[in-house]
Amino acid sequence: MERLSEKSQQKGIRLGILGATGAVGREMLKVLQERRIPIGELRLFASEKSVGKKLSFCGREIEVQALCSSSFAGLDIVLGAAANPVARRYREDIVSCGAIFVDNSSAFRLDEDVPLVVPEINPEAAFSHKGVIANPNCSTIITLMAIAPIARLSPIAALSASTYQAVSGAGAEGLSELEMQMEQWAGGERGELPHNAFNIIPAIGGAEENGFTSEEMKLQNEGRKILSLPDMKVNCTCVRVPVLRSHSISATVVTKHRLSLDRVRREIGAFPGVVLLDRLEMGQYPTPLDSTGRDDVIVGRIRRDAINENGISLFCCADQLRKGAASNAIGIMELIMGRDNALRHSSIPA
Amino acid sequence: MERLSEKSQQKGIRLGILGATGAVGREMLKVLQERRIPIGELRLFASEKSVGKKLSFCGREIEVQALCSSSFAGLDIVLGAAANPVARRYREDIVSCGAIFVDNSSAFRLDEDVPLVVPEINPEAAFSHKGVIANPNCSTIITLMAIAPIARLSPIAALSASTYQAVSGAGAEGLSELEMQMEQWAGGERGELPHNAFNIIPAIGGAEENGFTSEEMKLQNEGRKILSLPDMKVNCTCVRVPVLRSHSISATVVTKHRLSLDRVRREIGAFPGVVLLDRLEMGQYPTPLDSTGRDDVIVGRIRRDAINENGISLFCCADQLRKGAASNAIGIMELIMGRDNALRHSSIPA
Repeated sequence: MERLSEKSQQKGIRLGILGATGAVGREMLKVLQERRIPIGELRLFASEKSVGKKLSFCGREIEVQALCSSSFAGLDIVLGAAANPVARRYREDIVSCGAIFVDNSSAFRLDEDVPLVVPEINPEAAFSHKGVIANPNCSTIITLMAIAPIARLSPIAALSASTYQAVSGAGAEGLSELEMQMEQWAGGERGELPHNAFNIIPAIGGAEENGFTSEEMKLQNEGRKILSLPDMKVNCTCVRVPVLRSHSISATVVTKHRLSLDRVRREIGAFPGVVLLDRLEMGQYPTPLDSTGRDDVIVGRIRRDAINENGISLFCCADQLRKGAASNAIGIMELIMGRDNALRHSSIPA
Repeated sequence: MERLSEKSQQKGIRLGILGATGAVGREMLKVLQERRIPIGELRLFASEKSVGKKLSFCGREIEVQALCSSSFAGLDIVLGAAANPVARRYREDIVSCGAIFVDNSSAFRLDEDVPLVVPEINPEAAFSHKGVIANPNCSTIITLMAIAPIARLSPIAALSASTYQAVSGAGAEGLSELEMQMEQWAGGERGELPHNAFNIIPAIGGAEENGFTSEEMKLQNEGRKILSLPDMKVNCTCVRVPVLRSHSISATVVTKHRLSLDRVRREIGAFPGVVLLDRLEMGQYPTPLDSTGRDDVIVGRIRRDAINENGISLFCCADQLRKGAASNAIGIMELIMGRDNALRHSSIPA
């Protein structure tokens, strides 16, 4: 199957969302409305404890359903915003119903027969799917959006990155936990600062044998696949910071050929979905607050690496619930639907 | 002049503090009390607007004095915790009075005749002063404490670092600004989040022509001098994060010779003033909250760099008002006084 049939598109798409009540699921509903995706049917699925809840969509209240093997019959596309075990459990049910599963979990991202897609970077990959298309890791999408324009000029040999990841990257619970802690702190409970408030945590994901975390390895493993650079070396440190939304990344790439900074800036500024904000001397640089609620990846602090002649350092920020998750997944869906929205510079005014 | 005369030491040191009412000045008073430095006389200086204020020290109230050329007569040591112009203006007055100026500003750090000292790293340098000894930049001290043990095993060819710097690095105002913003936010003022709260700022210091900030260049310029590695290449990105106290640094060093991680861990763990906290799989890694109020630099996340064979990545945290400023300056003073406190593992229980 490649694109959706014309019939599906005329009547509006029949869509399911797996994990609709989570931080990413709710953001998907927002992006679907904003982009005015024509929807014929919308089924919202979540875990047992959320069944019966109602979520509003385009002025209607839609009840959250329980999941079972036959939940997906008649759907064109299922957007996955659930954890890996849920994605694994329902993959076959979704695909055998004839629906395309655009999944945000990390369960299938490195599978050979599953395309891993950022619409602005490797849209062609989306069309060789066998029923499942994976949405990459949030920090990976944001970092790659910033460096893909450079990779177009010269292959990237090495990428080093340190991240500044918002608490909402840990889901709706991460967000409400920090908000609650901050309110308690402001209420005078200052004897013992909680772990999240006014603190940073240099450990996201599980520990791997090589001393990296699973989150850190995603940038290498997923980055190689998306950029078609199987030998790209990636060194990453992932850190949680007390920011509500939007991840930031301090990155240095070393390219095969030496590039002029002017050329790099032009290419980054012209890349769809990327905004160049790079005038340090005027106080213009990306920050997470500036990127919150938008789909653009903001890139700045572009300069020659002080270590490698072919190195370029930069700093980038983007809303990880949007471009890092919901908007990218819906961009993949639009590709499949034959809509070109995914590739236009589709920022919402701040 | 090398060490202080025996007479000065018996009677207690005659000490002045320049900028006593600022965040670093107040921390100096705390550290002096904790370390029970024998003090014969203590003069506190600050700008006009603080003159007449009283600061408590060892149960006494000491009035803040105005500065003039003759303020320093009879003093053994002046600790500088003021801005560059103040340090420049009074340098000659201090030195011509026969006092040693241990200065925390960046005014003289790169001067050839001014030693730049971290007592645990290059104590010998302190004794070749000509009246002025400089205290390094806060992030520089913390990063170098973490990597100096590695430099002892093999020269460091390159250092790349991304920082996570607390708001109190911008002085007492930075701290109270974030606290106020957080209180307003918790009080319900959420329409427009202020720039500091829940945000990070990838720009500390002024813009240099090469695209780095002045703060970022300090790690290279000061690091080369302190480690006696004039060719060490340093690529740094400095970022302000909404943490009240303690700076963190994600760093990778490339050494001339390949080192085993076990040897690196042993050397770091044995280095005075450094605490190894490096068991990711057990959830043990440095965080700013854990290092707040202590003098130790906490180091963890030690692993082989994924890019360079001779590279080692690590993460470190320390209280930048203490080891990054006040405690280091007082450590230099203790060196000059012939006290060995500076080199013992002098952590305060958390």
